[in-house]
Amino acid sequence: SVNPDLGSERQTASFCVERLTALLDGGAEQTRIRRAVVEAIESDPVFSRENQYFQTQNERYEAAVMKAVHLQKKMHEMGWTENGPEYKYIYRALSGDVAFLLHRVFMRSISVLGSDRQIAKWIPLATQHKLIGSYAQTELGHGTYLQGLETTAVFDTATQEFILNTPKISAMKWWPGDMGRSATHTVVFAQLYIHGKCYGIHPFIVQIRSLQDHSLCPGVTAGDIGPKMNFEHIDNGYLLLKNVRIPRENMLSKFCEVRPDGTYVRQGSQQINYFTMTSVRISLISDEVLTPLQKACTIAIRYSVVRRQSKLKPGEQEAKILDYQTQQEKLLPQLAAAYAFHFTNDYLQELFDKGYREIQRKNFDMLPELHALSSGFKAMITQHCTAGVEICLRACGGHGYSLLSGLPSLYTKILASCIYEGENTILLLQTARFLIKCFMAASAGQPVPPSVTYLAAVKHGKCPAKNKLDFLSPDIYTEAYQHVAVRLTSSTAAKLQDLIQSGVKKHDAWNQCTVQLVQAAKAHCHYIAVKNFAETVEKLETKAGIQKIMKHLCDLFALHGIFSNTGAFLHDGYTSAAQMDMVTAAYLDLLAVIRKDAVPLVDAFDFTDKSLNSALGSYDGQVYQRLYEWAQKSPTNQQMSPAYERYLKPLLHNTLSKL
Amino acid sequence: SVNPDLGSERQTASFCVERLTALLDGGAEQTRIRRAVVEAIESDPVFSRENQYFQTQNERYEAAVMKAVHLQKKMHEMGWTENGPEYKYIYRALSGDVAFLLHRVFMRSISVLGSDRQIAKWIPLATQHKLIGSYAQTELGHGTYLQGLETTAVFDTATQEFILNTPKISAMKWWPGDMGRSATHTVVFAQLYIHGKCYGIHPFIVQIRSLQDHSLCPGVTAGDIGPKMNFEHIDNGYLLLKNVRIPRENMLSKFCEVRPDGTYVRQGSQQINYFTMTSVRISLISDEVLTPLQKACTIAIRYSVVRRQSKLKPGEQEAKILDYQTQQEKLLPQLAAAYAFHFTNDYLQELFDKGYREIQRKNFDMLPELHALSSGFKAMITQHCTAGVEICLRACGGHGYSLLSGLPSLYTKILASCIYEGENTILLLQTARFLIKCFMAASAGQPVPPSVTYLAAVKHGKCPAKNKLDFLSPDIYTEAYQHVAVRLTSSTAAKLQDLIQSGVKKHDAWNQCTVQLVQAAKAHCHYIAVKNFAETVEKLETKAGIQKIMKHLCDLFALHGIFSNTGAFLHDGYTSAAQMDMVTAAYLDLLAVIRKDAVPLVDAFDFTDKSLNSALGSYDGQVYQRLYEWAQKSPTNQQMSPAYERYLKPLLHNTLSKL
Repeated sequence: SVNPDLGSERQTASFCVERLTALLDGGAEQTRIRRAVVEAIESDPVFSRENQYFQTQNERYEAAVMKAVHLQKKMHEMGWTENGPEYKYIYRALSGDVAFLLHRVFMRSISVLGSDRQIAKWIPLATQHKLIGSYAQTELGHGTYLQGLETTAVFDTATQEFILNTPKISAMKWWPGDMGRSATHTVVFAQLYIHGKCYGIHPFIVQIRSLQDHSLCPGVTAGDIGPKMNFEHIDNGYLLLKNVRIPRENMLSKFCEVRPDGTYVRQGSQQINYFTMTSVRISLISDEVLTPLQKACTIAIRYSVVRRQSKLKPGEQEAKILDYQTQQEKLLPQLAAAYAFHFTNDYLQELFDKGYREIQRKNFDMLPELHALSSGFKAMITQHCTAGVEICLRACGGHGYSLLSGLPSLYTKILASCIYEGENTILLLQTARFLIKCFMAASAGQPVPPSVTYLAAVKHGKCPAKNKLDFLSPDIYTEAYQHVAVRLTSSTAAKLQDLIQSGVKKHDAWNQCTVQLVQAAKAHCHYIAVKNFAETVEKLETKAGIQKIMKHLCDLFALHGIFSNTGAFLHDGYTSAAQMDMVTAAYLDLLAVIRKDAVPLVDAFDFTDKSLNSALGSYDGQVYQRLYEWAQKSPTNQQMSPAYERYLKPLLHNTLSKL
Repeated sequence: SVNPDLGSERQTASFCVERLTALLDGGAEQTRIRRAVVEAIESDPVFSRENQYFQTQNERYEAAVMKAVHLQKKMHEMGWTENGPEYKYIYRALSGDVAFLLHRVFMRSISVLGSDRQIAKWIPLATQHKLIGSYAQTELGHGTYLQGLETTAVFDTATQEFILNTPKISAMKWWPGDMGRSATHTVVFAQLYIHGKCYGIHPFIVQIRSLQDHSLCPGVTAGDIGPKMNFEHIDNGYLLLKNVRIPRENMLSKFCEVRPDGTYVRQGSQQINYFTMTSVRISLISDEVLTPLQKACTIAIRYSVVRRQSKLKPGEQEAKILDYQTQQEKLLPQLAAAYAFHFTNDYLQELFDKGYREIQRKNFDMLPELHALSSGFKAMITQHCTAGVEICLRACGGHGYSLLSGLPSLYTKILASCIYEGENTILLLQTARFLIKCFMAASAGQPVPPSVTYLAAVKHGKCPAKNKLDFLSPDIYTEAYQHVAVRLTSSTAAKLQDLIQSGVKKHDAWNQCTVQLVQAAKAHCHYIAVKNFAETVEKLETKAGIQKIMKHLCDLFALHGIFSNTGAFLHDGYTSAAQMDMVTAAYLDLLAVIRKDAVPLVDAFDFTDKSLNSALGSYDGQVYQRLYEWAQKSPTNQQMSPAYERYLKPLLHNTLSKL
């Protein structure tokens, strides 16, 4: 039975929830396919996550391997294929709790970097799971700066082999997934040496474990890097190589080849490689970043209408905590962001698909813009969503702090997204470099890519808003965001030029501007996110209340950004103090409006109880009962502790050796 | 051997590290005592935390109980007493990793709330550990709102007993420390009923486990609440009571008594109770909040001079990451905050001691101010320090995400401080209520407590700074902070009055202002923190470079606050845009200045390697070696996994039942 405090929230929805779900899925048919996948996965006990919060790292790893192996069967049974429409929903339905994700990266790197001959040899082996692959790039001493990797691959003409070494401790491969215990093969990135000359980083296929008994190959030391904040189910590993010899044919050679006599041949363009990174950064946004924020919003908002605490009006019943303005101000902007970034993701996907089509026509013109946008948005969205999940966690008080709420593991997992696939600060600086370059070009009257043409049109006007309702106009707030992005980019470009003209060396000048460059990159992405949300809303169907509620969320997303960062808008007087007070008033008014639809808006994300795996967030809102039931199952209640006999009894009975 | 990249940082310290350590400790003699305690604890293998990151919740609990019991012996052996000068250093030396902390709360609540007779009976039993006490206040359904607690204690005149019940699931006690597995007794807070009439919340001593065999007493159900984000070593518990009878004498009766015939008698003043909460909030700041931030700064800053990544200047060696402006901008403000809040804590302690002296003279005048300041600063400092630890964690990239860095557990632990002992938003609203009240009083010409007299002096001037150096003047920035605090308080007071005058009911009006009230409370605390830091620096000895470096940190703390919150200062034109650019320039300049002393500044916190328990933060900076050594010891490497035989081998050998 549904908790009436939750049930009543659903009766007053201003829009059709099912319709919004279909919009998020990209059509009702997609919703149907997704639900069928979820149903098939969740009804299979092998995929259960029920005891996840009670398991040790070892138990989590074993369960993930079991699930990965079982998934092969399941796909066959269900008729799902890697190219089928169901495939993209499987990972989400499993909540990512599965091993061998790096096996797919292993395969993709061979497909992208390998010769036709290498592809023909390795891909079938990998597809049939005659080996388990990994991807060994990051080292103890190097992550961001790939050129600094220290692993070496020396070509030995006599034997036609590469000799691989991790010559010092910092050269040890560190972090590769599936490598600690599972992988039999890996793609090692190493500095290539031929006749004593270094040719830079190249990829090599290296077998690390026996296919017979899984023992480590000669010269190979490997293991697990130990406990992490999350990802207990993945055996992130380390790898030491000591004079490990591999045949010449194992260097992936689509772009570069070493001939038998040691001649180094470069062939084709490597530009496509950047495109791979772009593709990874965009693809992680949906599964690894948006889904956790949507889940956290679902949990925190459902809990906040079930939890009653203190009285809003004297003499009345205790109030639902979502009725407090401060709680609305914590949660509803996160909800708006979850929607905003969903549409940003659509925008990036579309741009990416367009870029892909161009590249296939050998037109690489879109690459710099795509790289800048995917870098900046990866950083901005992971940053916002991580902060959002943390806010949801804190907003649930003590119960949010229990692992049983599901929120801690959402947080500790999404946090990693700020670091992997490009550390956020580094990525924002790449976006900033593109912005500065385009700003200079635009100022000189040269053409620039579409997303940055606005930089050319520096206007020195003022915000025209006259009352708080004006701030519900997308034109008004989008222009304000644009103004800030232009101002931050142009002022930082000016500072950079001033420094260089005053004699500061170029790299020093750049370093002295990086704090402000990061601000400019964020402002650029924020502007595009707001603009895209507003344009998306414009095009939505007006039926079933969808456009209206999305418009409210768009307004909230935009005004929350201004309210949280007033200085950027006030700085040069574009927005006046009186206008900022209007923003505040409009923003606070919106909270009360959206609060009414808060539960339907999270229901539309359509998470099952099993996928949320949260005692606070279930569809029926029976929070306290579930917390109590789940706690019973904890090993802290299921296993007798020796502490009483060993320590407490002697203490209480005063039979400890006399003090 | 010390990593030369770390060693070189120590040779250029602009101040005497040992002198700064003594300043932080409150004198060289205190430093000596502290170090003796640390040495005694850390040389005792029973107190080792070496394997902490590898242990399960059950193992952590058992170790904490073992340590707590061993500590009794140790104290006797060392001649340490609860009133001795060593006592306050023990908990810090143990990094809080010990059981029975609630036993002390049990004792304190009896001392404060019990009659002389009750104190005479229970305190000796507790002191001699003939029982283990806990403190059962929070329920599944109520934390913040104590009046809403649902546990009942009905007086039965026939038997002269109270009958205790947790009549519904939400009434279950939930969270009390040491209660899940250890405690034999607890203080239960329950609604007192006599002859059908409710007299509100009162405290009762209830035995929950047998002193003979530790079995649960009749009518008692208790257990552990399961996994949490941290505090695995504490058996936070739940407690259900079903018609549990306790003698009339077990109601703690310093302030209220139930006579044998059921007459309810109230005696004395309960105001002192508020003082207890104030005392707890202030005392937790040092151990639970400042220490974790200091540790996180130590780890992240030492790592940032050892980690080299990418090149700052082409052709040179890779740069220490602390040489990047963006890394400085992440870490150095946290370092400044760690110092700022150390001095805030001194200020609060002094105020508290003064208040305590007054109360002993039956003068309760200082209570409202003390309550407002301790609430506001508890919220502000826990919030800033939690964010600071998270920034330190992220700033260490992938290695920060490993539990072996020590940063994840610092973060997950300090995060709880935002919730316990008063949820931060609630606390800030209490401070705000005090501010509004005082502002109204001051506006009406009435006297107000010293910390808020500034509210009376609303000035409409402008910031007089003419260049960036002016912003290194404490008068300039302190006044700017004061101006913002006054503005936010007065404008919110005006909004509140306007709403009420326009017919909005008082409680609704209050709710509609809470987002802004929270801002006002934060601004008030921030102003006092800045002012106090500046005044403290003023009084420091000028010798050994101490005052100079503290002045830099004070400037950084103040300017970082302005830089991060420019809108508040720009809003009414008190600070102009040109002045804000000066703030930015002065702030960025300071980063480069303080960067030179960053390592000596964290060295001055004087943490041993054992207390940091971090592969990244050790004094010798041998980061990679230690990560590798520690990972070897992980259960993921020490325990054979059955996953190969069960799943991987059948998969690789294609002996899974045919797909």
